[in-house]
Parts: sequence; structure tokens; C-alpha cells
Amino acid sequence: MAERTYGEIPGYPPGSTFANRTELAASKVHRPLQSGICGGQDGAESIVVSGGYVDDEDYGTEVIYTGQGGNDPRTKRQIAHQELKLGNLGLARSQLEGYPVRVVRGAGGDKKYSPKTGLQYSGLFRVVDHWSDIGTDGFTIWRFRLVAHESADPPPDLAPSDIAGEATRVEATIQRLVRNTSVAAEAKRLYDYTCQICGEQLMTPAGPYAEAAHIKPLGKPHNGPDTISNVLCLCPNHHVLFDTGALQIDPEGRVVDTINNAIVVDLQLTEKHPINWSLVEYHRNIHTTKTQAEK
Amino acid sequence: MAERTYGEIPGYPPGSTFANRTELAASKVHRPLQSGICGGQDGAESIVVSGGYVDDEDYGTEVIYTGQGGNDPRTKRQIAHQELKLGNLGLARSQLEGYPVRVVRGAGGDKKYSPKTGLQYSGLFRVVDHWSDIGTDGFTIWRFRLVAHESADPPPDLAPSDIAGEATRVEATIQRLVRNTSVAAEAKRLYDYTCQICGEQLMTPAGPYAEAAHIKPLGKPHNGPDTISNVLCLCPNHHVLFDTGALQIDPEGRVVDTINNAIVVDLQLTEKHPINWSLVEYHRNIHTTKTQAEK
Repeated sequence: MAERTYGEIPGYPPGSTFANRTELAASKVHRPLQSGICGGQDGAESIVVSGGYVDDEDYGTEVIYTGQGGNDPRTKRQIAHQELKLGNLGLARSQLEGYPVRVVRGAGGDKKYSPKTGLQYSGLFRVVDHWSDIGTDGFTIWRFRLVAHESADPPPDLAPSDIAGEATRVEATIQRLVRNTSVAAEAKRLYDYTCQICGEQLMTPAGPYAEAAHIKPLGKPHNGPDTISNVLCLCPNHHVLFDTGALQIDPEGRVVDTINNAIVVDLQLTEKHPINWSLVEYHRNIHTTKTQAEK
Repeated sequence: MAERTYGEIPGYPPGSTFANRTELAASKVHRPLQSGICGGQDGAESIVVSGGYVDDEDYGTEVIYTGQGGNDPRTKRQIAHQELKLGNLGLARSQLEGYPVRVVRGAGGDKKYSPKTGLQYSGLFRVVDHWSDIGTDGFTIWRFRLVAHESADPPPDLAPSDIAGEATRVEATIQRLVRNTSVAAEAKRLYDYTCQICGEQLMTPAGPYAEAAHIKPLGKPHNGPDTISNVLCLCPNHHVLFDTGALQIDPEGRVVDTINNAIVVDLQLTEKHPINWSLVEYHRNIHTTKTQAEK
């Protein structure tokens, strides 16, 4: 397995330019000569965004990146389904691990953020979401949302002064972010902080702890609603498993272990909690690799 | 129980000034007339930093705040131990829930950040840490680290454009932050992503998931080392319970449930993992309310 180097490559700060992929590879900022993702089952260290996929979206400090596979390099169209393996798996792992990903932009990408010729290293991003979708060409694609480190939070247990002094040395990054809203608080009250999957309540010296899991994610491109019908009250463990698609909810309200393809338990539901089942279906869809175009 | 209002109070943006506590209370930015913390077992909505406690530290976008209780208002010295209840419990809950806390500074506080007279609303902060300590005067105090929202991460599933447009409306905030470093990665490899407390390995479609828990926290004021001797590999649930002090490790390496005062299980340890037991002792100390000055 390749030895991965996460984070900055000394001598190549953000803004560094490269005439071509050979030069880029020699710098080790992005080592493969052709592949858009440098990564595997242990994680992904870098990507190149160069307009090779019609479903890529570039917003500067945020990139919606299409995974690899099934693409005809000549036409740039999808001709087969993508799977969560190789570089795609690497990006998903980098999300789980919180690894920083070097983002390189090529001349073929969005004109607003890409160099006119050659390639340019844009800086460190982190993967904050991944999901499957049907791309423009009708095949399953895997999509990754990356957000620039610069617009990200410094680790909260480092003081701002610590950060400023050693910005390039900070390898640490944020891994799991949990949001809270009045809707989240309502969900937790509804279940008295017990997990709707395992029924456990984590008790701490400061009272019970639970997390609100949005079924259809908030924000672009999912735009799930921040309503009680879109939220579950889960323990952190089941929140991770639900968000990664390891657990899904079937139409009968049963919790399905998608790794072992087994029904685990019934989702606990109170009458006061009007789940929107079309959102549950959306959650199932974004965590499935279809081998036929049947989504 | 008081109805809490978290977040901004309409009409009182950061920078708003108040001649005195009566005017401040009328604005509802900080409702109590005397107490430094507006909060209880459901959470804390605001604090006043005004130099009332000798152990307070103000760094502008970061505040180390001393909890309430045991203070002689005449001399400003501690004369008794503080406990994790009332407003102190409220701030701990606000950390667990990710609630925003309004910070008001009074004329008695640090000169660099405080108004010359009266009081000034500084903006929203979040509580990122709480722990117990022996204060300057020899009694147990509870301390809280608050970081300004402005220096915090926008929720990652909101695009930057969403944030800018509705900054005042964003009630959502970040709740649980997990860091990763090469040391963290090493700890997870050592245990193959199984939790050292429960032995479980969370499996996702992108591979196993675990978290690295620092025993003595990183950063000021703890300054725990980022070394393998200071890290445990835990599942998210046990990470929460360990970080909040619900679980501690005793000198014999047993996991103690401090809520029920019971030994739960032996901590799983491999020979390759040289835990530093003085750091484990530090962790016990910062999560204990001593009723005698025996720390």
C-alpha cells in the first residue's frame, strides 16, 4: 500500500503552479499522472479538479467533486456506474478520518477558480460529505463535498495564537461536526435523549447527551428541511452509522444493517414524531451503489 | 424552569452598551441582576465577564471563565468550593448541546477587551471545554473555555453563501469536534479501530470508524502532549463519556462509571501502547468536584 502524505508538501504552498501533470507528479502534490484522485482504502491525499466530469461544481472555497470510474475521457460523459472503491473509497475514508485533502485545479475547470493553463495547487480542503447520485448521464456517481481548510474552524482546543504561529504545521483537522438547532433540541426532548435505534441514553455529569441526525442532509445540494419530520434522536455511534449509510431505515420503519444486509431492530418512534418517509427514502438512495440504473 | 433564549436578542447587536446591570437585564441580553451566569440544568444563555473572579482569563475571542459559587463579592476571593450545578451546570449543558452563549463584558474586566464604564455585549460564544481545577485561593473551581462564534466554523452543510445572507438567523452551532493527527491515526491502527472500553468496532461502507481521545486535553490551559501515551482509541459514545468525566480510568487501568460509582470493565491495552499514567491521573482530577481541598 502506498505511503500517504497528508497535508502540505514542503516547498509547494497554495498558489504553486505546474505546467503539466508530469511536473505536478514530480512535486508530490498530486502523484498520479492520470488519475484525478490520489487515494485508496486507507484515505485520499489529493485530487485534481479539471472539468473532467460534467457533474463537478466549483464554488471556490467549496467543491462538489465527482468520484472516479465509468467516465469516457474522450467525451467526458459517464458510460458506467461508479462504485465506492479505489479513490472514491479513499475520499470517503478521508472524511471519516478528517484527513486534509490537497486540491489542485486544472485549466479545464471552472474559469473563476482555475488557472488559464497548466495546474495550480489551491490548498487543503476537507471532505465534509459524500453520497451517491444519478449523474447527468443517467449512471450512479459518487459525489464528495470538500470545503477549504481556510474557511474551516481552527481546532477548538488550540488557541488562536497557537494556530497563527504554526499554520503550516497544523496537521490536525476536524472530523465530525454535529449541529444543533431548536428542531434538534425538540427531537432530543421527544425521546428524552435516548437513541431511536438502540434505546440507550448516554448520561454524563452534565446531564444526558444525544445527537440530532438529519435524515435528508441540510444544505446544498440536498437541501433537506430543518424540521422535526427530518430529524432522528440518536447516540453518537448510531449517528455515525446512519450518516455513513451503514444503517438505513426501510419503508416499514425497520433499521437495516447494509453491511451485513440484515434487519437489526425497529426504529423507535413516538406518536408525536411525524417522520417524513420520503426523506427516509432519500437517505436510502444517497447511500446506495446501484449496479443497474434503477434508482 | 425559565424559558431560555439562545442566540442574539433582536435590537442588541454585538457592541451594544448598557449603563448598568438594570439596563442590561431589561434588554434580556443577560437577565439576572447579579448573577454572572444566566442558566440552569437546561443550559446557559449568557454570562457577564467583569473581573469578579481572580481566575478568569480574557483573550478577546477566547475566554477562560470561572463558574459561580464560593466567591466573596467583597474581596473577589474564593472562600469555598464550587460545584457543577446551577449556572455552572448550565454552561456544561450548553457545551454538550452546542448552544450559543451571549458574552457581556463589564468595566471591571480585562482592560484590552472591556468597556471603560458600564457593560458591553461582545457577541455569541460557544463553550468548548469545561473542567475543575484548584483556583488561586486553594478551592475547587469550575472553568469553562468559550470561543467566539465569529472565529468558529460555519456549519459545514451550509454553503458560505447561505451563512453570509442570514448570519443573525443561524442558530445552528457546532457541538462536538474531533481532531485527528498522525498520533490519532496510530492509536486507531494499534487497536484496529476497536474501542478500548467496549471492544466494539463501528463498521461503515467506507471502512471502520473510531475516534482518538486525548487523555490530558491538548491546548491551553491543559497543554496535554499529542503523543500516543496521551491517546485512547474509543468509539464515539465512549469518547463522549470519557471527555465529560462520566467515565474515568483508575490507577489499576479499570474503567470507572463516575455517575454510578462502579467499576465497569478493564481498559483494553496492548503492549505496544505505553500509556502515561500521570496523564490519566490528570484526567481524573479535572473531572472531579472535591468537597475538601484534597486535590
